[in-house]
Amino acid sequence: MNIGMIIYVLGYVLKLEAAAMVPAIICGFVYKENVIPLLVTTFISFFLGQGMSLKHPKRTDFYAREGFVICALSWIVMSVIGALPFYISGTIPHYIDALFEIVSGFTTTGASVLSDVEHLGHGLLFWRSFSHWVGGMGVLVLVLTILPLGGGYNMMIMKAESPGPDVSKMVPRVADTAKALYRIYVIMTVVTFFLYLFSGMTVFDSFCIAFGSAGTGGFAVRNNGMADYSWFSQFLITVMMILFGVNFNVYYLLQKKKWHDAFHCEEARVYFGIILCATLFITWNILNVTPGHPLYVLHHVFFTVGSIITTTGYSTLDFSRWPQASQMVILFLMYVGACAGSTGGGLKVSRLIIMFKEIFKEMHMLIHPEAVKRIRLEGRSLEHNVVRSVNCYLIMYNFIYLISVFIISFDGFDFTTNFSAVAATFNNIGPGLGSVGPVSNFGHYSDLSKLVLIFDMLAGRLEILPMLVLFARKTWKRVN
Amino acid sequence: MNIGMIIYVLGYVLKLEAAAMVPAIICGFVYKENVIPLLVTTFISFFLGQGMSLKHPKRTDFYAREGFVICALSWIVMSVIGALPFYISGTIPHYIDALFEIVSGFTTTGASVLSDVEHLGHGLLFWRSFSHWVGGMGVLVLVLTILPLGGGYNMMIMKAESPGPDVSKMVPRVADTAKALYRIYVIMTVVTFFLYLFSGMTVFDSFCIAFGSAGTGGFAVRNNGMADYSWFSQFLITVMMILFGVNFNVYYLLQKKKWHDAFHCEEARVYFGIILCATLFITWNILNVTPGHPLYVLHHVFFTVGSIITTTGYSTLDFSRWPQASQMVILFLMYVGACAGSTGGGLKVSRLIIMFKEIFKEMHMLIHPEAVKRIRLEGRSLEHNVVRSVNCYLIMYNFIYLISVFIISFDGFDFTTNFSAVAATFNNIGPGLGSVGPVSNFGHYSDLSKLVLIFDMLAGRLEILPMLVLFARKTWKRVN
Repeated sequence: MNIGMIIYVLGYVLKLEAAAMVPAIICGFVYKENVIPLLVTTFISFFLGQGMSLKHPKRTDFYAREGFVICALSWIVMSVIGALPFYISGTIPHYIDALFEIVSGFTTTGASVLSDVEHLGHGLLFWRSFSHWVGGMGVLVLVLTILPLGGGYNMMIMKAESPGPDVSKMVPRVADTAKALYRIYVIMTVVTFFLYLFSGMTVFDSFCIAFGSAGTGGFAVRNNGMADYSWFSQFLITVMMILFGVNFNVYYLLQKKKWHDAFHCEEARVYFGIILCATLFITWNILNVTPGHPLYVLHHVFFTVGSIITTTGYSTLDFSRWPQASQMVILFLMYVGACAGSTGGGLKVSRLIIMFKEIFKEMHMLIHPEAVKRIRLEGRSLEHNVVRSVNCYLIMYNFIYLISVFIISFDGFDFTTNFSAVAATFNNIGPGLGSVGPVSNFGHYSDLSKLVLIFDMLAGRLEILPMLVLFARKTWKRVN
Repeated sequence: MNIGMIIYVLGYVLKLEAAAMVPAIICGFVYKENVIPLLVTTFISFFLGQGMSLKHPKRTDFYAREGFVICALSWIVMSVIGALPFYISGTIPHYIDALFEIVSGFTTTGASVLSDVEHLGHGLLFWRSFSHWVGGMGVLVLVLTILPLGGGYNMMIMKAESPGPDVSKMVPRVADTAKALYRIYVIMTVVTFFLYLFSGMTVFDSFCIAFGSAGTGGFAVRNNGMADYSWFSQFLITVMMILFGVNFNVYYLLQKKKWHDAFHCEEARVYFGIILCATLFITWNILNVTPGHPLYVLHHVFFTVGSIITTTGYSTLDFSRWPQASQMVILFLMYVGACAGSTGGGLKVSRLIIMFKEIFKEMHMLIHPEAVKRIRLEGRSLEHNVVRSVNCYLIMYNFIYLISVFIISFDGFDFTTNFSAVAATFNNIGPGLGSVGPVSNFGHYSDLSKLVLIFDMLAGRLEILPMLVLFARKTWKRVN
């Protein structure tokens, strides 16, 4: 284990976090608020980071193991520091709560322990929403673009942080891939901001909700959630959330004018298909029980479906009061999640496609035992490794899910609440059903449960393995 | 597709079913009840079977595809006929309900649509309980021992019907394996019957509950479930249920005096370990909220844990009123299920072990990328095929689970009820939580939901693939 290297990269992560707090400080200044908590944290983060990255590591080589450990530790360290402003300012007096809130931010979950968010003030609200944007594309991906280190080993870090079953390198050098991703991300976010502003939202709200949509986070800046905005704004938010849930490869292909490849992305097509079907089904299902014009119902259902499948978690109405069948569709969307290579969470559409194809392959082999069949995705034959890791992912997912529900069930809430609380955090969505539904929050859980849910959010965002590797005894053995 | 062969085997299955109804008819005679419904069904079953097996098929060769189709069709045909006595007698006036009841019997689920079972009369109660015994070890396994067909192809049928990830042939010839299994099964059932009789239960109850324990079924013959029996009887039932949940390989090894192999069965050890841990945990967890002596609590918890992990589903008390954490353990046990190669259902302990080992392998490969590691079970290295089919099983399990919950959610029951109704039927347990808990029944679901749950019971018992193959368009194509 290359400890020197790990500390060095962590130092850069902390310096980057210090830089990430500057916009929030400026925002606080503009609104003439107390920015001392943010300033103090920035200083701590910067000097700690500076100290850790002073010594350039002797060996810069590292392997998958180090990649995963760096990834997990970066997110933990970042969260531990990032929670300080809430704690120091006293707006979230309990540290575990503050940690829950910022982990929920970085992992783009959007689950909150607060019932009154407006009480935080603009500076902290800005930081909270900006954390979605930072976490959405990944911090390490950004670090890779600025880290003064040669070698192709960086792929290991990127692999650990990127969502989805496989990273297809868009350009040969990892740092270039990272830069290309961030360029698309920044441009799309700026466009989103101006669209929101144009639709009549305030500058502050446009900034925060743009960060939330881009990172598919879900923190609102008003106590009423999204219900305060106009129809037009809500519609724009829906569209932007869905676009940020598309595999960024598609945008890269569009940028390169490879129209055919871009429009034939198998994953994106299935993704849009699911959104369409779910929207139509739920609209039909709730039409009789929801007051208002059918178009009004369609509008809100479209918003909710887009918000849930992209694992953003914004809400305009309380879907936990819909008929059971519609709630089940919502629960299904929670698991599906967005495309791989997007900022969304969940199992990812491509994993779902691979799993479906595995079933068909198994049945095909039963009926034609002599046939040799390989699973194909996006026109390419999948490596055995990819299929195996998808299977492993599902197994780990099931196990962690079960254990999490078990531990938080000690708090005595009902099954629906516990089950969907884990669904909402592990898939990085935000609201669940029951007592953690869209109009409630996670504040009533015990500290132990909150820690479990914090673990779930991180495991969900980092796709489980980094968090497991971190806690494996073997990882820390001297040998090798 | 060798249609002639399929019809021929189905004929034998029906003749066997006719024979299986004879004990119930005798029982009805003894209690001087109306046995006409049973007699009529026996005749239908026999003559239909005789007609179908008149013509010996020209080609006796068949492959995996035929094996799976025969398996699925046998169980469906058997159930369609087996439901008739309830329907004809008018005790279950709605045919779908009668079908639900007998499928629940054959698949050893034990979920009922009846609130008053005593109303059925002894003959029908006997048939209902005997269906557990018939379904427990499998009908086709029995057919294989009497079918006048040569060739080693029979393995295909046995593979389709046997529970668990892999059939290890105990003796070279399939028919001999089937005979060996049934010999052990019959001897153990007889012993169970005499033990129950000795503990003070009536002859009739001893028979029925022995069939239920042997098949890990769960149909009770009293409206109070198991609560009517003495402590000693309940304890014996617990022990016998748990013993019938052990891989029958162990008993075969014991019979062959291979003590070392028998006592070092990895799956059995994990199985007993889970039972011990779950019993101790739940006892500790509910001690404060349950009135009575700790030993009294321990006794009932042991009974419940044994009943649930073996997927029997007998109940002495209402576990849906336990604290959430204990309910979660129960839910976990529902999924785990018993050992492969036993009469129990669920995912099977060996699948769980394989899945656990897959995670460790994945992590090991991450930390030591150069290492070559194979997953081992019971001291043998597992074939790639076995691991792949375990993975596929988990995927199919998840999908069918989701779709089932979705369809039955149209009935408007709460999430806990729907979720656990599928858990209870798909894993062949019987009682769930909420409105389908141990003191309730499945009668209030709609016909569509009942059909879905019937499919789930069959898919759970036959381990999914046969039921899927049956509905695949490709299966029925003329070519090959």
